[in-house]
Amino acid sequence: MRIVKLTKESKSNILENLLKRSPNSYGKFESAVADILANVKSRGDDALFEYTRNFDKADINPSNIVVTQEEIDEAYSLVDDKLLDVIRKALVNIRDYHEKQKQYSWFDSKPDGTILGQKVTALSRVGVYVPGGKAAYPSSVLMNVMPAKVAGVEQIVMCTPPDKEGKVYPTTLVAAKEAGVDVIYKVGGAQAIAAMAYGTASVPKVDKIVGPGNIYVALAKKAVFGYVSIDSVAGPSEIMVIADETANPRFVAADLLSQAEHDEMASAILVTTSEELAKKVSAQIDEFLKELSRSEIISKSLENYGYILVADSIDEAIEVANDIASEHLEIVTKDPFNVMTKIKNAGAIFLGEYSSEPLGDYFAGPNHVLPTNGTAKFFSPLSVDDFIKKSSIISYSREALELIHNDIETFAKAEHLTAHANSIHVRFEGDK
Amino acid sequence: MRIVKLTKESKSNILENLLKRSPNSYGKFESAVADILANVKSRGDDALFEYTRNFDKADINPSNIVVTQEEIDEAYSLVDDKLLDVIRKALVNIRDYHEKQKQYSWFDSKPDGTILGQKVTALSRVGVYVPGGKAAYPSSVLMNVMPAKVAGVEQIVMCTPPDKEGKVYPTTLVAAKEAGVDVIYKVGGAQAIAAMAYGTASVPKVDKIVGPGNIYVALAKKAVFGYVSIDSVAGPSEIMVIADETANPRFVAADLLSQAEHDEMASAILVTTSEELAKKVSAQIDEFLKELSRSEIISKSLENYGYILVADSIDEAIEVANDIASEHLEIVTKDPFNVMTKIKNAGAIFLGEYSSEPLGDYFAGPNHVLPTNGTAKFFSPLSVDDFIKKSSIISYSREALELIHNDIETFAKAEHLTAHANSIHVRFEGDK
Repeated sequence: MRIVKLTKESKSNILENLLKRSPNSYGKFESAVADILANVKSRGDDALFEYTRNFDKADINPSNIVVTQEEIDEAYSLVDDKLLDVIRKALVNIRDYHEKQKQYSWFDSKPDGTILGQKVTALSRVGVYVPGGKAAYPSSVLMNVMPAKVAGVEQIVMCTPPDKEGKVYPTTLVAAKEAGVDVIYKVGGAQAIAAMAYGTASVPKVDKIVGPGNIYVALAKKAVFGYVSIDSVAGPSEIMVIADETANPRFVAADLLSQAEHDEMASAILVTTSEELAKKVSAQIDEFLKELSRSEIISKSLENYGYILVADSIDEAIEVANDIASEHLEIVTKDPFNVMTKIKNAGAIFLGEYSSEPLGDYFAGPNHVLPTNGTAKFFSPLSVDDFIKKSSIISYSREALELIHNDIETFAKAEHLTAHANSIHVRFEGDK
Repeated sequence: MRIVKLTKESKSNILENLLKRSPNSYGKFESAVADILANVKSRGDDALFEYTRNFDKADINPSNIVVTQEEIDEAYSLVDDKLLDVIRKALVNIRDYHEKQKQYSWFDSKPDGTILGQKVTALSRVGVYVPGGKAAYPSSVLMNVMPAKVAGVEQIVMCTPPDKEGKVYPTTLVAAKEAGVDVIYKVGGAQAIAAMAYGTASVPKVDKIVGPGNIYVALAKKAVFGYVSIDSVAGPSEIMVIADETANPRFVAADLLSQAEHDEMASAILVTTSEELAKKVSAQIDEFLKELSRSEIISKSLENYGYILVADSIDEAIEVANDIASEHLEIVTKDPFNVMTKIKNAGAIFLGEYSSEPLGDYFAGPNHVLPTNGTAKFFSPLSVDDFIKKSSIISYSREALELIHNDIETFAKAEHLTAHANSIHVRFEGDK
């Protein structure tokens, strides 16, 4: 793995290289997606089943689009008991963590009769998209469904493409059932997003669509944003490790590789104050590469977006971490909590040498759907916040409004909105 | 104003009519906006000043793009003292309300060394767009800036177009200064959005862009979403009033008109259980229309999107309110708090006959930037939440990880991610 001295210039080159991964010019897919959306919007189920026949080669119709209890029972019989046990353990942690994110309605009152507040309401119906086949990670199902469940969403529906026989991958069904999905529809791709955004006879309109997908799914989500809410469009995975001379090079190397294996666009970056650690991690990576099953993907991803940066100081390392705003950030230094206080931008922060990134992917509880590609500067992990919305509450008594009615009229008139002023004025027109 | 019996059919027709106002087919502006964005991205200041010369007829350059202290002093001398006094009073209420929205970092620890948490960080730099000329409402400046200020954003910049003489409307400057804007740039339109999204030599890149604007500004914000965060694109204003026979028809009529005056696309809907109230409000509206300065706009807006609906019961009225999900909802009934408990979807809820909508526009404290066009089903008022983001915190001890390391490896292997499994495995490879 290449070792680079961290300088202003090398940093700016790396930032530019990483941002190349931004989803930007997908013009060629956009018109295909727009056609699918328009077609499902106007022709509903007919278009939906047509696309499913063409793209998934499956014969789906109103009578078999919903996954049945028999199919779910079958899926349970096919999933390894050990995996089911782990899924259930992970769910407890994920639920516990997300419970702590819950927000509550509040109000504030004054003796003059004024009440101001904020009412928190869960979304009514949410749609979770799950990609087909083996690409459907059960951990991803848990992470997308559980925050909606904890938020109190009334109905959680799922769309996932069927295989040629009209079946859904068993671990997807089991994970969905365990997490509490209410109905599962056998439909995938942009047509599934269209169905959930506009509603068809078979698939209900939802308030928000979440979950990963290919470029068609991502573009469809972007296009229906506004009709419904969506989660943010996920980019390729990223890990950054800040380490000093106390870090274990074998652990650091293994953690960098754990993200590099996702795909060739993934990025793994170590920034360290120790040149010795830099060399040891690089050597260790070469050694691991001989053994790992996905070494081809890893090699390409390291070649494209892998760096070992040598910094003059921890503060310099922190600065580059804030500039890059990595999806995952491990801090493996003498005093990781001290370093953490200076981190402004990161999706999830892992502290100390036993907090390896996959712990967060599967088990610890925090969500693994995280902002990528520098968006941790302004976006947050998927959370209960994504499945609630707020309404302001305003209640004034006559007494309270009387005190300020002239002020409001002054403001409204200054903005030339006379009907606004009138609405206050009429309430006191009998007064002197 | 037309009076319609609320039925399944009339409801569905009204919902369809209201949704026509959705911003959907703006294809003809999109390419112009794309050109502006690409040009500013590649040519920076040069393009920015060129557009300002062409569109605003103003000669702006690096030496005069930033509003000076002298210009601000001049603005103060031009603004009415009474208005300044009201702005200051309103700001106290707006700050107080938004202070209550603040969220805090938290953590949870277990005796085995596990620490899980969520770190809240304010965005670093935010850009507020303010339209030019008299369309720049000072109340809008306060409402867009204050939540960012309360959230703790380090730098708040503002972009607003200059007039031909290179001047900015004085109340805009005064409101910006009072709310705590750090720097004001004289640049407007899609080119201002481009400058804040990509950065130029004169205008810094921001993390999030908020604030209203014309169709060019709205499309530019939508296009740069992902490079930066944006607020939601605001549609035409809306008011809905739920009233029973106890409501004062004169107050209700005045409140409906206060939103109808915004523009011809605005919507004002009364839903009432009292046919008598329906008739009285309709008559009262005709009377007010003779006096109000913006009666032409109001008449068109009422003709297009104004309705008085007569419902059989309060529950039916509540149902239609939830279906329409109005930006503003007034509840003027015997027991408004009881009705409020059943409201799921509304931007801001005003309770009782002295909580008229303009109170919320200017003075009470809650934000007046609210979800429109049915999006209150999934979006919230602009708030402190919009100017913070969260990072998950995960810290495990060796002891804590040891207990579950086999579970994580099982999960990772089930997903065929061997490097993930390896990152856990190496930490215990010496153990038996």
